[in-house]
Amino acid sequence: MKNTTLKPRTPVYIIGSASVVGQQERKGPIGASFDISEKDDFGMDSFEKAEAKMQCLALGCAMSKAGLTEADLDCMLAGDLINQCISSSYGLMDYRIPYFGLYGACSTCAEGLLLGALSGLDRCAAVTSSHFCSAERQFRFPLEYGGQRPPTSQWTVTGSGAFILSTLERDCVRVQGDFVPEITELLPGCIVDRGISDAGNMGAAMAPAAADTLERYFQAGHTPEESDLIVTGDLGHLGMDLLLQLARDDGMNLGGKLTDCGTLVFDNTVQDVHAGGSGCGCSASVLAGHILQCMAKGIWNRVLFAATGALMSTTSSQQGQSIPGICHAVAIENEVK
Amino acid sequence: MKNTTLKPRTPVYIIGSASVVGQQERKGPIGASFDISEKDDFGMDSFEKAEAKMQCLALGCAMSKAGLTEADLDCMLAGDLINQCISSSYGLMDYRIPYFGLYGACSTCAEGLLLGALSGLDRCAAVTSSHFCSAERQFRFPLEYGGQRPPTSQWTVTGSGAFILSTLERDCVRVQGDFVPEITELLPGCIVDRGISDAGNMGAAMAPAAADTLERYFQAGHTPEESDLIVTGDLGHLGMDLLLQLARDDGMNLGGKLTDCGTLVFDNTVQDVHAGGSGCGCSASVLAGHILQCMAKGIWNRVLFAATGALMSTTSSQQGQSIPGICHAVAIENEVK
Repeated sequence: MKNTTLKPRTPVYIIGSASVVGQQERKGPIGASFDISEKDDFGMDSFEKAEAKMQCLALGCAMSKAGLTEADLDCMLAGDLINQCISSSYGLMDYRIPYFGLYGACSTCAEGLLLGALSGLDRCAAVTSSHFCSAERQFRFPLEYGGQRPPTSQWTVTGSGAFILSTLERDCVRVQGDFVPEITELLPGCIVDRGISDAGNMGAAMAPAAADTLERYFQAGHTPEESDLIVTGDLGHLGMDLLLQLARDDGMNLGGKLTDCGTLVFDNTVQDVHAGGSGCGCSASVLAGHILQCMAKGIWNRVLFAATGALMSTTSSQQGQSIPGICHAVAIENEVK
Repeated sequence: MKNTTLKPRTPVYIIGSASVVGQQERKGPIGASFDISEKDDFGMDSFEKAEAKMQCLALGCAMSKAGLTEADLDCMLAGDLINQCISSSYGLMDYRIPYFGLYGACSTCAEGLLLGALSGLDRCAAVTSSHFCSAERQFRFPLEYGGQRPPTSQWTVTGSGAFILSTLERDCVRVQGDFVPEITELLPGCIVDRGISDAGNMGAAMAPAAADTLERYFQAGHTPEESDLIVTGDLGHLGMDLLLQLARDDGMNLGGKLTDCGTLVFDNTVQDVHAGGSGCGCSASVLAGHILQCMAKGIWNRVLFAATGALMSTTSSQQGQSIPGICHAVAIENEVK
């Protein structure tokens, strides 16, 4: 492994993005930034089908904002938390677009952006989702059981985010007027396992991976001053505190630039979400909504988006294994035309 | 979606590959072609941990054949069938190499080769695995239950395959003498669902996807004569028959070039494997072993490797959904130096 970041060989622009969320997310502090929100069942007869429908809606909305149809896309990169990533495959199978399935847990949004940007294809889509009810049922307990969630637990965001990447200069001139975010730098993460085995404390499992990736990023010659914002996703309040502590211990300067998608999406003083938001859909919908909108307004011009994932499974947890984490980083810059 | 295949922007060479299998595979007709075989538990206390160990062994062996260490690799792309792809994340987490998790069911080997070749990175690894016992327990019944398998069912290969890709000319000169397979063309597949809902008949679920990808490949201007072999993986005997029938119905000429990894790996006249082999590890270990070795001997100079996957999950099956399939194609050519 080399101690350098990767740069796309040709400029990669985000020419369209869309977010789809449920009710809890709409009521949160950045609720107005999401494109679509519906009741949590999205009119479907299971939560898994509802999650699939969110991906379908998100990609459709992002393509429409980019003024493209499925015939214009070279591929879609998508993943989610549900076993065998069925929210992605069933949600996107009606689009006649070549499909790459990903599994990066809650880091999947960044993984998709990273692989899409590396591919150098003319146009591709990165899509991901999570759903509170399908995730609780699969990873913890079905909602009907009424299990108590520990204070360290995070609330899986019911949400989906879709992004259309293009390397075609004419696309970014055409679609978004004076705001065209560009993906300028990439740093894929290594798997980091510090022995956390509490499936109710994802923040602790992921914080060391975030510290590892950020440390590699700064070792590659970067400074926190270069970015207007460093946003992890989705450490939540406890995970973010741990990351700050790890950074202090390692002498890593984050320059007061750190925030986290899991802390932005809910207000845990009034919403009963314990340590904050999580899930593939958290960082994806917060990036597609709040963050890119703030960049469009010129509030931030360079954002380091460092999405974290806990690579856990009920199978490995039941076999006594600890929870490895991963963090992929993508630098997004406001390309003012 | 455009009706053309993709070509890597710089030549991509397979500079090392390795296969690791269990006992049933070693006893099969191409058993001698595999690098490593052990008892099916690989010395571990669970089948899931055994599967993870196979990936660890396969990548280690492939790196060693390529004369590289983990410091030389830019990333690894890996996936498997187990929920949340834990065979990959636990199997590879001791390698300090940036990690991209994939989920493409049994097509994952081709997905990894495809994304690795598209990435244009100096060197990356594509790894995948499956294990009969972990797959039976997860998708069907634990072995202890003694369930009867229907005649249409396939036997999940206990195997792992790892490939080291390099875009560095000096690598291919250095490592493999006069045989350096090159990845010359790529065709990612679309999701195809023809309504098959029998989880005991994966071949039927995947054959339409294989037909779809091969049809797109020939529509892009190719002929069967260009390739010495078209090898799907892992349709098994029934799925391959269905593919031949679909090809006839659609007027698609396969030129007598078709074979399938699931039919090569076992001899179902003497091994009790019903319709043949399947699983991510099937096409991966057959490609890393038998196919690349036959290419090294000059028996085949151009192979179209079209790995198929059934994107099913017990969750979606239990909710009455049918089984979508996918097929990614990669053309591999014998680059004689």
